[in-house]
Amino acid sequence: MIKPLVTLVGLLHKSKISEQVRYASQALPQLSSEKYNIKRKDFGTIKSSDVSYFKSILNEGRVLTDENDVMPYNIDWIKNCRGQSTVVLKPQNTAEVSAILKYCNEKRLAVCPQGGNTGLVGGSVPVFDEIVLNFSLMNKIESLDDVSGALICEAGCILENLDNYVRERGLIMPLDLGAKGSCHIGGNASTNAGGLRLLRYGNLHGSILGIEAVKADGTVIDCLKALKKDNTGYHLKHLFIGSEGTLGFVTKVAVSCPVLPKAVNLGFFGVENFENILKLYKSAKSSLGEILSAFEMADFDSINSTVQNLKLPNPIADYPFYVLVETHGSDDVHDGEKLSRFLSKEMESGLIVDGTVTSEPSKMQTIWNLRESIAGAGLVVGYVFKYDVSIPLKNYYDLVPILRKKVGDKALIVCGYGHVGDGNIHINVTVPKYSQEIASVLEPYIFEEVSKLNGSISAEHGIGFRKPKYIHYSKDKSALQLMKDLKQLMDPNGILNPYKVLPDTV
Amino acid sequence: MIKPLVTLVGLLHKSKISEQVRYASQALPQLSSEKYNIKRKDFGTIKSSDVSYFKSILNEGRVLTDENDVMPYNIDWIKNCRGQSTVVLKPQNTAEVSAILKYCNEKRLAVCPQGGNTGLVGGSVPVFDEIVLNFSLMNKIESLDDVSGALICEAGCILENLDNYVRERGLIMPLDLGAKGSCHIGGNASTNAGGLRLLRYGNLHGSILGIEAVKADGTVIDCLKALKKDNTGYHLKHLFIGSEGTLGFVTKVAVSCPVLPKAVNLGFFGVENFENILKLYKSAKSSLGEILSAFEMADFDSINSTVQNLKLPNPIADYPFYVLVETHGSDDVHDGEKLSRFLSKEMESGLIVDGTVTSEPSKMQTIWNLRESIAGAGLVVGYVFKYDVSIPLKNYYDLVPILRKKVGDKALIVCGYGHVGDGNIHINVTVPKYSQEIASVLEPYIFEEVSKLNGSISAEHGIGFRKPKYIHYSKDKSALQLMKDLKQLMDPNGILNPYKVLPDTV
Repeated sequence: MIKPLVTLVGLLHKSKISEQVRYASQALPQLSSEKYNIKRKDFGTIKSSDVSYFKSILNEGRVLTDENDVMPYNIDWIKNCRGQSTVVLKPQNTAEVSAILKYCNEKRLAVCPQGGNTGLVGGSVPVFDEIVLNFSLMNKIESLDDVSGALICEAGCILENLDNYVRERGLIMPLDLGAKGSCHIGGNASTNAGGLRLLRYGNLHGSILGIEAVKADGTVIDCLKALKKDNTGYHLKHLFIGSEGTLGFVTKVAVSCPVLPKAVNLGFFGVENFENILKLYKSAKSSLGEILSAFEMADFDSINSTVQNLKLPNPIADYPFYVLVETHGSDDVHDGEKLSRFLSKEMESGLIVDGTVTSEPSKMQTIWNLRESIAGAGLVVGYVFKYDVSIPLKNYYDLVPILRKKVGDKALIVCGYGHVGDGNIHINVTVPKYSQEIASVLEPYIFEEVSKLNGSISAEHGIGFRKPKYIHYSKDKSALQLMKDLKQLMDPNGILNPYKVLPDTV
Repeated sequence: MIKPLVTLVGLLHKSKISEQVRYASQALPQLSSEKYNIKRKDFGTIKSSDVSYFKSILNEGRVLTDENDVMPYNIDWIKNCRGQSTVVLKPQNTAEVSAILKYCNEKRLAVCPQGGNTGLVGGSVPVFDEIVLNFSLMNKIESLDDVSGALICEAGCILENLDNYVRERGLIMPLDLGAKGSCHIGGNASTNAGGLRLLRYGNLHGSILGIEAVKADGTVIDCLKALKKDNTGYHLKHLFIGSEGTLGFVTKVAVSCPVLPKAVNLGFFGVENFENILKLYKSAKSSLGEILSAFEMADFDSINSTVQNLKLPNPIADYPFYVLVETHGSDDVHDGEKLSRFLSKEMESGLIVDGTVTSEPSKMQTIWNLRESIAGAGLVVGYVFKYDVSIPLKNYYDLVPILRKKVGDKALIVCGYGHVGDGNIHINVTVPKYSQEIASVLEPYIFEEVSKLNGSISAEHGIGFRKPKYIHYSKDKSALQLMKDLKQLMDPNGILNPYKVLPDTV
């Protein structure tokens, strides 16, 4: 069953989902302000003197004002949101970010930070005429300590580039996600990106060692220490991790990189029902222990629709559920033995019905590509209502069949897939085109149910522009008031990424 | 070389250092306010009507006012600080904590939170007449999900009790420290405790899933979700992790518990010089990979003084340096092979001169006990200036020989030991008794040097009462101003743990 294992060094280049699905509908999406009936807040409007000022600090080429040049920065990659910005700024260093924000704060000009623009909740595109501050030119790697594993780099570094860089030096990035070919590490930090291997390498609050960020008034907050332990006063960096650019803009990041695994294995299994997935997860945690690096699931509809829509191969036959188990270890023989023992046991027990195991890079890539392509597969055939929720494991899959029934034949596909190891399920409802009628069947119903189950209405995608009105399903009044107080403290004019994260009323 | 490995289930009961060294000098320490020349801030003073109010909500038995009853709560365990509190309150639940703080905030009465009182920077004892709010009666375990590993419990649970509880259910606590027999999980969270296995299981910002805390005005902030992924707005729990009770009091904690390792091994090695320790660390990261759970060092003086002062056995001969390597894994044969390969290689290379390896619980306990007893060993013979700093690895040990020279024969022992894997070294300077003259030789010199090396002046012990005046060596003006702003926002009357963490001037 287990094929010979090989030592792997630099592998697993991910498909760039963002590229894969950018070919979806070329028509311009509706303006966010109209689609969601939002009123512009009382910010200043950009004058030509403002543009001149920006050109004086950034020079001509890094201030975009031509309508065609600016357009792509107004639209999110799932083409759900469209803003009306007329100015894109591309700073090259922290001092420039600081100067821009200081100026904008004084003039009450709103600013939208933008990394790789791979977000799924409209957080990285403007709603009205916010200035887009794009980080793509802040892409320098400052240092890497190959003994401690501490990497220091600018916010605009693309995750995949960083991963390639540290892999050449015997390390890996502690996070991995489908959008790695486009997303920026600063955006990852600002949105507390989760991804595929959180199970093994932990979340960004744990693996980000330091952050440099700029407050609304231009003050640079330097918490960029590359130390694993630093208990000197308040742990300020965490204010900027996950607050989606509403409390400050992340300009540099120090990340703790784990050792590159010498052995990587991937198993892809067919499973009869969801109960068996939970049993299999418990067994994998025990049998594979410290080498378990990912435990993902997808239902039949997730895999089947991806295979159909994107013409991708499924390496095994049709099953009600699929499980992907990955191991990262330091010894190929040991890892092979552990995996083999796990497989024999669970094929005998019947938890695994069929499957394939490989350590061959191209085959692993094929399987990961299938898993990672589920997110965008529906966009090829229509509009996708995407939900990203955490639900305690015993109720993890409950909502999918309920929604399937509720939406009926109005949907092309209702599917569930995600990171079982993190209690995080993605639910996609694909419809021929966006409809308010279906939206109102789904929302807020799905959030109410998640709240009843003590879950989170946004596991890893964040709140962004799309979900502030639902945030109360996951945060109570006191917590929302504290959020509002923090926003008032850090950004009294509210210029940083407005219309995002915070609800209008608490 | 390697002895047969056994499968271990519930082991490694740690020596309770706090008990071990409590026998030090029975004389009362000098009052903190006099010793450090501190002026009382303008808080209210406790009246008998206040005591009556507290008795009305807590009942008689949980309000201590007798001088002898109150005394132990005024003194820290290294007997360096002594406060002057006249009232100790022992709430049993969050509602009581909330009622106490609401009342104290209205009356401007200062409050000092106290967990196991095992801190080393005077953070958990009052300075003047602050009311002590002791959490020892809030010690209920609320739930444990044995599939996800999420434990929810009250702040006053003792770490070792929690560890014993989860071990019986196939899990371990993600942190371990010498004081585990006394310290509270709420105190661990509030001080962002690091400890012995951070290298493997990460820090508390990563492994604490949720927190419930009470603000100065009595508002309960409920972020107690037990989910691994929850990106719904600001990640408020991190405000309370590491802020040492100055922004709010932690009342409940949700922690992610890793799987109990089926195989544990411990190696204790003699090493010729510090350079070889760094080489050995890099080799261990590569050879032992995912099973490496601790990599600790101690110099000759650390081990020798502990052996002498506490009459403990050293399992190997005298060497300039010692290294302790621990593995946590799921397969005893695999782990044994990895360790054996590492050992053969590094004994051949000469990095390891001599050593012992064991998986026998009692022998592992003997070695861990020696390592963990270094912290308190100096207290038996005199006063110990204790420093807990992070320094980038290449300069990790530099300060010890410099200090040895600087202090000369005024010190009984100058020794360095700590968590190499975390870049965290503890430096103890033991003198016959506290002297201002020696203090001024050591401080601020040591903090200046750490700052020059881009280190942290407090790696894991925190700032507490002892170090606010040195915090600027690790935090710049902007960061300190933001800390001050946050304090003003969360606790405008400054009643929560005053005289701690924040410097008087920014």
